Formats: sequence, C-alpha cells, structure tokens
Amino acid sequence: MSDVLSVVTERATKQQDGPESPRSVGWTRSRRVRLADKQNPLPLDCGRTIAPVDVEYELYGKLNEERDNAILIVHALSGDAHVAGWAADAEELGRPWLKTRPGWWDTMVGPGKAFDTEKYCVICSNILGGCYGTTGPASIDPETNRPYGLRFPVVTVGDWVRLQERLVSYLGIQRLLAVAGGSLGGQQALEWALAFPDRVDSVIICAAAARLSDQGLAFNAVGRHAIMTDPNYRQGDYYDGSTPDQGVAIARMLAHITYLSEVAMNRKFGRRFCNGEGPGFHLGVDFEVEGYLRHQGKAFAERFDANSYLYITRAMDYYDAAAWGGGDIDQACQRIKSRLLLVSFSSDWLYRPEQTKELAQALYRNRKLASYVNIDSSYGHDAFLLETDKLSYLVRCFLEGGEEQ
Amino acid sequence: MSDVLSVVTERATKQQDGPESPRSVGWTRSRRVRLADKQNPLPLDCGRTIAPVDVEYELYGKLNEERDNAILIVHALSGDAHVAGWAADAEELGRPWLKTRPGWWDTMVGPGKAFDTEKYCVICSNILGGCYGTTGPASIDPETNRPYGLRFPVVTVGDWVRLQERLVSYLGIQRLLAVAGGSLGGQQALEWALAFPDRVDSVIICAAAARLSDQGLAFNAVGRHAIMTDPNYRQGDYYDGSTPDQGVAIARMLAHITYLSEVAMNRKFGRRFCNGEGPGFHLGVDFEVEGYLRHQGKAFAERFDANSYLYITRAMDYYDAAAWGGGDIDQACQRIKSRLLLVSFSSDWLYRPEQTKELAQALYRNRKLASYVNIDSSYGHDAFLLETDKLSYLVRCFLEGGEEQ
Repeated sequence: MSDVLSVVTERATKQQDGPESPRSVGWTRSRRVRLADKQNPLPLDCGRTIAPVDVEYELYGKLNEERDNAILIVHALSGDAHVAGWAADAEELGRPWLKTRPGWWDTMVGPGKAFDTEKYCVICSNILGGCYGTTGPASIDPETNRPYGLRFPVVTVGDWVRLQERLVSYLGIQRLLAVAGGSLGGQQALEWALAFPDRVDSVIICAAAARLSDQGLAFNAVGRHAIMTDPNYRQGDYYDGSTPDQGVAIARMLAHITYLSEVAMNRKFGRRFCNGEGPGFHLGVDFEVEGYLRHQGKAFAERFDANSYLYITRAMDYYDAAAWGGGDIDQACQRIKSRLLLVSFSSDWLYRPEQTKELAQALYRNRKLASYVNIDSSYGHDAFLLETDKLSYLVRCFLEGGEEQ
Repeated sequence: MSDVLSVVTERATKQQDGPESPRSVGWTRSRRVRLADKQNPLPLDCGRTIAPVDVEYELYGKLNEERDNAILIVHALSGDAHVAGWAADAEELGRPWLKTRPGWWDTMVGPGKAFDTEKYCVICSNILGGCYGTTGPASIDPETNRPYGLRFPVVTVGDWVRLQERLVSYLGIQRLLAVAGGSLGGQQALEWALAFPDRVDSVIICAAAARLSDQGLAFNAVGRHAIMTDPNYRQGDYYDGSTPDQGVAIARMLAHITYLSEVAMNRKFGRRFCNGEGPGFHLGVDFEVEGYLRHQGKAFAERFDANSYLYITRAMDYYDAAAWGGGDIDQACQRIKSRLLLVSFSSDWLYRPEQTKELAQALYRNRKLASYVNIDSSYGHDAFLLETDKLSYLVRCFLEGGEEQ
C-alpha cells in the first residue's frame, strides 16, 4: 500500500545502509522471466487467460543445495520487486527515483537483518497488472499491438499468487520457507497459505486482514473515480499522449491520508502554516499538510501508471479470504497448514487491529499455529514500513521458532 | 457539515412530521434582508470589507415582548436557513430538493420539540459565502457586474458570526437565549460565546471542537484540489457555462466517508455487491458502497456551488478558538460568560470526542458553566443529525436549567 516516498521524512531520520554497508545487500539488478506464453497462458479468476506474462523479480542471498531456504516477499499497492539494496539498474529501468533510496523494506532484508540474506534466499517480484516490469495495462496487447489499457483483464490477489507460484517453481523451489508482506502484501501472504498450503512453511502477515472494510472500499472507489473522470484518462487509452496525472494525484493524496494516523499527522504538521505565521486568506496551499499532500500526489503521478492503480486497488477490494470457505472464514482457515505470524499496528485505521485479530481468532478456532501481535505504534498503516525494529524482533523469533521444530 | 441528503436512508426510517403535523412548524417561507451596504460594509478578518450583503433567514415561533426568547441555530457546511418545517417557497427559490423533506434539524425544532417553537423564537440564517440565499461567490460583484467567483473575499467563522450579530440586532434582539449548532455550526456557536460574551446566555456545541485536526485539514485540501483541477472550474469563472461537477462530486464523496463511522458503513453495506452475488470483474461500480457514494456526489454537485464549497471548507480550516487567547485555548476561554453544553458522539472521527473533551477541560479550568456529554453512537459525525432523541433530552435539560437560574 504505502511506499517509500510516502514516508521519506520519517525514514530520513533512520540510519540508511549505503550500498557498501556490510548490512546492505549492496548493488542490485532486477531480473525478468516469461512465465506464461501462448502455449501455457495464465488462467485468471475472471475466467479469461493472459499471455505472454513477463515477471520482474529480484533475488538476494543464495539458494542452498536443498533449496529449502527461500523466502518470498510480496509488495504492497505501489511497491516493486526492489525490496532491498541499491538499484544499479535504476537508469536503464527508467526509474530514477530508485537512485536516491534503498529498497522499500531495506531495514528488514540484508545480511544480519530479520530476513537475513546470509541464511535465506530472498525473492521479490512485481505483481501482475503493476507498472514496474511485470506485464500490466501498459504492456503491449498481442491482439492489438497496442498497450492493453482497459482491455487488460481484471486481476485478483489469487491471480498474483498463482503467478508467484510459477516463479517459485521456475526457480526450482518446491517449498518456501516463508512468504511475508504488509498491507496488500499481507493479503498475498495469506492467500499463499490458503492456495498453496503444501508449498509454504511459514507466513508473515502485517497490517492486513481477511478483507478490506467498506470504508477502505469507499476510499478506493473515490480514488478510482478521480482517475477515471480526469479528461486525460480517455477510457484508459492515454499512453500516446497526456496522462491523467491530476486524477492519480488526487487518488494518492486521499489514500495517503489513510496511511497515516491522526496522531502522526498532528505531530508532523500541527496545523502549521506554510508562511510560519497565520492564515494567508487564499484558497491555495496555506497549511503545511496541504503542501505535503500536494507533493505526494504529484510525485506519485510521475512514477505510477494510472491504469495499474485502478487494477491493483480493484484486486485489493475483491480480496476476501473467506471465499475459500464459501464465505465462512473459519471454514476457509481449515485448509491452512503453514505457521502464521500476524502483526497489526495499534493506530492503523486502514486495516484495523480488530480486523487482524478477527483473522487470528479464526485461525485459533481451527487450532492453527498462529501468533498474533498488535504493535503499539502511532505511525498508522505506514507502521509496517517504519516500525521495523519491533517487527524485526518478531520476525526473527518467528523464523527461528520454525527452525527448531 | 453533513446534510439531509447524506443521511436520507437513516432518516427515512424515522417518523417524519408532515407539514400538517402538530409537531411541525408547518409550511415555511424564507426571508431576506440587506445587512451591509456601501455606507455600512461588513469588515472581514482578511482585512477587506464586503457590500452589499444580503442574508437569507427563517424564523419560527414568536419573539416575546421582552425579546428574550430567541434562539439562533447555525448550520453546517452544506446546510441552509431552512432548519425546520416544509419550504413553501422551494420552487421559487429554485431548490426542488426542499420539496421532498423537512428542514435539516426538523427533529429538533418545532412545537413541543427540544427547541420548542411554542416557547422560543428560532432564527436560522445562511452563512456568508454560501449558495442558499446569502451573498456568496455566485452573487454579483458590484465592481464588475459579474459573479464574484474567486474575487469573493476569503471569509471566516468570525465573519459569519459578526454578520449573524447584525441580523440579531436588526431583529431587535439584544441578547440571545441560546446559539446552537453541530459540526461547522458548533464552531459558530463557540465563536458566538467568544466574540459576543454579553449577547448570548447559553451555547450548544455539537460534534465540534476548538479547531479541526490536521487529518480534517487534509481531507478538505484534497476535496478543494479535486474541484480546482476540474477543467470546468476555470479559475472559478464557470457561472456562464459548464460547472465543475466532477470535482465537486469527488470532494463530496470523500467528505461523505468522513461523516460516517466505519461501523455504520459496514452495517449499511457489508461489502455487498450491486448484483447481489459476487465480483463483476470490472472497474466501474461493483460494490453497493461505490454506487451509494457516486449517487451522493452527483446529487450534491447538482445542488451546491463549487466556489461556496471552497470558501466554506477554508473557513472551517482556519477556525481556531485559541486565537482569542493568542494561541492559548485556556486564555481564550476566559472571556466566555455563557453557559455551555458540549456534545460529542463516540464514533465521530471528524471531530473526535477527545477534541470536544479538550475544549470542555479548558472551560472547566476556567470555572465556566460547561457540561460535556459524549453520546454513545455508531453513526459517526452524522450523529448530530441522527441521534436527535438523545440530543433532544440533553438540550431540553440544558435550556430548562438556564431558566431556573
């Protein structure tokens, strides 16, 4: 959901591990592989199939001989495969923003870190429908030789996970040691436990739940509406001209509010005026919080494809883990065989702690090996990217607990 | 803030008092008066003055001979002077929506109701900058003979209250028995106690606080941004052509989410699909909550002026009661002489109970005659329009308590 840009102020206060640091995975290069083609298209939940499908992914650490030390990390709404280290290929990928900061969970992934690349082989891939290297609405539709736009099929979290399973198989991995993610990544981790119970030992779900609330659906709907009513949107066929940046910016500004807690916003902005004094008596940017949001929206519109935003939020809307139990979350959880760690953050109001707890309780009722922790944090939903000291401790204990079994 | 349209579903379940009901003020007609002209313009907080200023207001009940039974009710963001009864002049005012429902606080104002029109003379006027009869950005600027648009001065809650004071004086009332309002109306009630301590006996502040939070500022900022980037907005000069309805609809959809609690939304929509079955695998309206919001946005854009929305939300942003104490709310409260009733609603997250409580505590520290009640409600911010049984009880006790003194 959140991304590095959105929390750049807080992260700047944390020590960053430069590319030469012994705690960094260092310079990284992304990889690409075709995982579906005409002969072997990817079947989708919507009933259609898609081919070709190329996937961008990154790998850190070494796969051991037994191929049993692989951890798949799954990203949130606006994330990418670049989870750790410094992108040596930022320029050739056309993503200059990657040059100024490490991967989005760099504090969690690296030598000696919670996802210890000295011990584990860490994999992360961009999701289907995204705009960072994996096939998405901006890719060329082989039927028209033009970008898909709205001809791209509606994809689901289930589709993403099935594509990730193809990647894992391609890498020769039968069984993952763990799948981990936050926010929409947490929903993917949960889906792994449900869809492939025999292929994953442990699952780590942060700042997520069995489904999004109606309030979350509502925020996504307003964001999509802003994009689709932007005159530059032109039914999604904007790739040869001006892009619907205003709509994307509005969607992002709005979503950004849901990533921060009220307390964090008050602390950060305190109703301060840009001029440091008082009301400027105009309708433009007058409070600091306005300038901040404007900047977030603009920066995001420059780096994210509008159609991908629509498709990814739709997948987030549709996800409901209870579907595996015909609408009954308890029945759905029966099929799970993995150990699970569920982590919520006290001030998160997008995926509220109570929602995560409800999922934990369904797991307990099914006598699954699940641990639920609510981390006390004022950072809101973004906490899964910021409270990485506390999160690291939990993840380390959880992964080591698995080894002891 | 909220309006009747937004809660029409809930209200429909309540018994409405028709125009012939003995508990209704019956058929009403609005009045208009010029309260500022070239000779006597209205001075504004921004440093400018404005003239002419016409004010639309309504009156129910009778002013007694002592002229000491008047209660001023102040409306929220999208409200109007029509607080009770049935508008006989809906057609001539060009506001057809008034024909299908009574005034926005009809459950509170009428014979035998909390604001009992058998005992009190109830006054309600439309705010400066609004679009329901009082001078606003759509009014003719005498300097250009064209609608003001963005040439309209930025107005404040303080300006509104000073204009209301002119109305009260015009009606020959030296001292108001009470001023009452919810949301942005609550901020006006508070401002009355601060600006005119000798002119009001009692003040009733619902679902409001000393100031809006940064989160509230952020939501307002996104809404305004959506309006001002709508291509039809044309720097506010849209009165002779297409209006920025898409921007207004987005602003309203977004704001509407903040008026409902998460619990109320889940209860109302429960992630149900429009087709009653499951995902339609498209990007349009698929969940009921999406259709509902789309309807709210569209209906609001048809009845509300975009510029008024900008000016009113800006006034809401700027309001800070602590300004009366040089930024210190305790010092500000010293000047208050009225009795005060403060009411918050437990699930309101736009003006949270804690914020109302903070204001109450500042009043207590100053030994003011203040009562604070947090009503347990799942309706969110809209509760001030919906929990009128509980609110009526409190208001009645409070007003009668004043009589006994």
